[in-house]
Amino acid sequence: MKKFLNEPEAFVDEMLEGIYAAHPQQLTYVADDKRCLVSVARQPGKVGLATGGGSGHLPLFLGYVGRGMLDGCAVGGVFQSPSAQQMFEVTKAIDQGAGVLYIYGNYTGDILNFDMATELAEMENIRVLSVVGNDDVASSVQGEEHKRRGVAGIFFVYKAAGAAAEEGMSLDEVTRVADKARLATRTMGVALSSCIVPEVGHATFSIGEREMEIGMGIHGEPGIRRGPLLPADAVVDEMLKPILAELQLGQGSEVAVLVNGLGGTPQEELYVMYRRIHQVLGGQGVQVAQVHVGEFATAMEMAGASISLIKLDDELKRLITAPADTPFFRQHPQAGR
Amino acid sequence: MKKFLNEPEAFVDEMLEGIYAAHPQQLTYVADDKRCLVSVARQPGKVGLATGGGSGHLPLFLGYVGRGMLDGCAVGGVFQSPSAQQMFEVTKAIDQGAGVLYIYGNYTGDILNFDMATELAEMENIRVLSVVGNDDVASSVQGEEHKRRGVAGIFFVYKAAGAAAEEGMSLDEVTRVADKARLATRTMGVALSSCIVPEVGHATFSIGEREMEIGMGIHGEPGIRRGPLLPADAVVDEMLKPILAELQLGQGSEVAVLVNGLGGTPQEELYVMYRRIHQVLGGQGVQVAQVHVGEFATAMEMAGASISLIKLDDELKRLITAPADTPFFRQHPQAGR
Repeated sequence: MKKFLNEPEAFVDEMLEGIYAAHPQQLTYVADDKRCLVSVARQPGKVGLATGGGSGHLPLFLGYVGRGMLDGCAVGGVFQSPSAQQMFEVTKAIDQGAGVLYIYGNYTGDILNFDMATELAEMENIRVLSVVGNDDVASSVQGEEHKRRGVAGIFFVYKAAGAAAEEGMSLDEVTRVADKARLATRTMGVALSSCIVPEVGHATFSIGEREMEIGMGIHGEPGIRRGPLLPADAVVDEMLKPILAELQLGQGSEVAVLVNGLGGTPQEELYVMYRRIHQVLGGQGVQVAQVHVGEFATAMEMAGASISLIKLDDELKRLITAPADTPFFRQHPQAGR
Repeated sequence: MKKFLNEPEAFVDEMLEGIYAAHPQQLTYVADDKRCLVSVARQPGKVGLATGGGSGHLPLFLGYVGRGMLDGCAVGGVFQSPSAQQMFEVTKAIDQGAGVLYIYGNYTGDILNFDMATELAEMENIRVLSVVGNDDVASSVQGEEHKRRGVAGIFFVYKAAGAAAEEGMSLDEVTRVADKARLATRTMGVALSSCIVPEVGHATFSIGEREMEIGMGIHGEPGIRRGPLLPADAVVDEMLKPILAELQLGQGSEVAVLVNGLGGTPQEELYVMYRRIHQVLGGQGVQVAQVHVGEFATAMEMAGASISLIKLDDELKRLITAPADTPFFRQHPQAGR
């Protein structure tokens, strides 16, 4: 295990100490618990947006807390759900009287804890709604979308909902927007190597020196198929196929694209992939309104990548391109691609 | 070799095709050569800033071309210098009559070609000056700084010079600022694993499963010592020691910090490292004006990290914190840490 760490058990809390030390003007914590992370800024009357999930996915989840995106994040251990109590503490801290929307990924532990936090919040008369990201097309067949995992595409849901809340929309409206973004987003991933959870100390799974696994999840969940590593263009084509089909993209459609590195893959390779995505979309007459290439939702040091597309209408386009300023994501006004 | 690529020989050009497809509003190229990358925006009368170097280090070098930083970049093959002709084409394209400053790293091939490009430019009556980054304290002893390699700390030189040019400073003034930033910056790196050059197809060097190499360069150049991988805090302490000594940091000093991942190291680990840096600096009474944590100068998929510090005076602080907007680095106005 080749990692920069001290005691594996201290990894998440030391990481958080680094986060707070590096970004004191933007991030702080409540309830005397470093894992209850909130934005320093409060905007009276704004709908609060919270997320949460396991560590090991930076910038996901806490990296998107900041102006124009989220207000708080409950932070779990590596690949572990935070507790309901932590989610509730974040909820109380960020509620400005307009209610709170939870946006998180479709994992059993997170659902259980966010549902419990919702009940705790309601007892304190804080209205809470939830949108559960399930963008990973590889994790279940069409028609069974409720079984799908949430992966990198949740970035677009955060971005759209964050901008909607910033515009002053009500909780119901922000939720409508978040759900629209969720339904318009699809992701497919591919893994080339495993990751190592610090407290485990060895690779989560093994994969051959010339193999790839298409559709693998960001914790190493099984994908659709394992096979020889193909040329980049062929990998991209295979990843794009179900996304294009499900989103019914064609002449005149408009999308934003996220090419996400899973941790161990150089950005150069992500751009080689984007080159092919651009060719394929162009060939089908699909307009690209915005492109993000980099690390947005990782699995520690896993080599691999995911492609997320969101199909845009005018409202989603306006919200996706609105400014944002978080420790891990900054977008200037009028940012196109 | 587990990479997303098509033909290894096409890697750099396909990467560049992806870059131009993803960022058409910000980046373009001249001389019908994709490796002659320039900013789309031209600011009449502004001093032009150019860089250049081998590929495989993204965001370095081309990622810092954009508003508030650089105007152009000559792009070489993986770990190879671009040609003098490419540098000259970039120079001609970005010159706005105020002259051009070259800022690049201290490598023999780059020096040779940038010097030749300077001669070509002078024949066309373009005034060119150069500042050569040599921030890597591990690559030669104090007193022989001219032998040191340029690594991640060049980011601070770009940032300070870019903001100076944006303020309307003359070529001589921008060069003075760039040189001041260079002299105030020190970097130390540590490698945990090798990288793989696509056209080579195997690891550049081998390193044991429990080993680290302190002071290794970003192409795998030998470091100061190889030994067992120590706890993160001990690694940071060893890396900081020569930096603190050479910059003569102490009570009342002010710095900006760059914790740079070399490609394969998760951002969580970089924050564990920053936590310790913050402790050490705080313990010595050193003020931290700004912190950057992430990938700023990589070596493909190498696992490892570097720490760069720049000692600030009022002018450097103003320039370092000024806004910037490039495809790989965005900073809003009044961005502190």
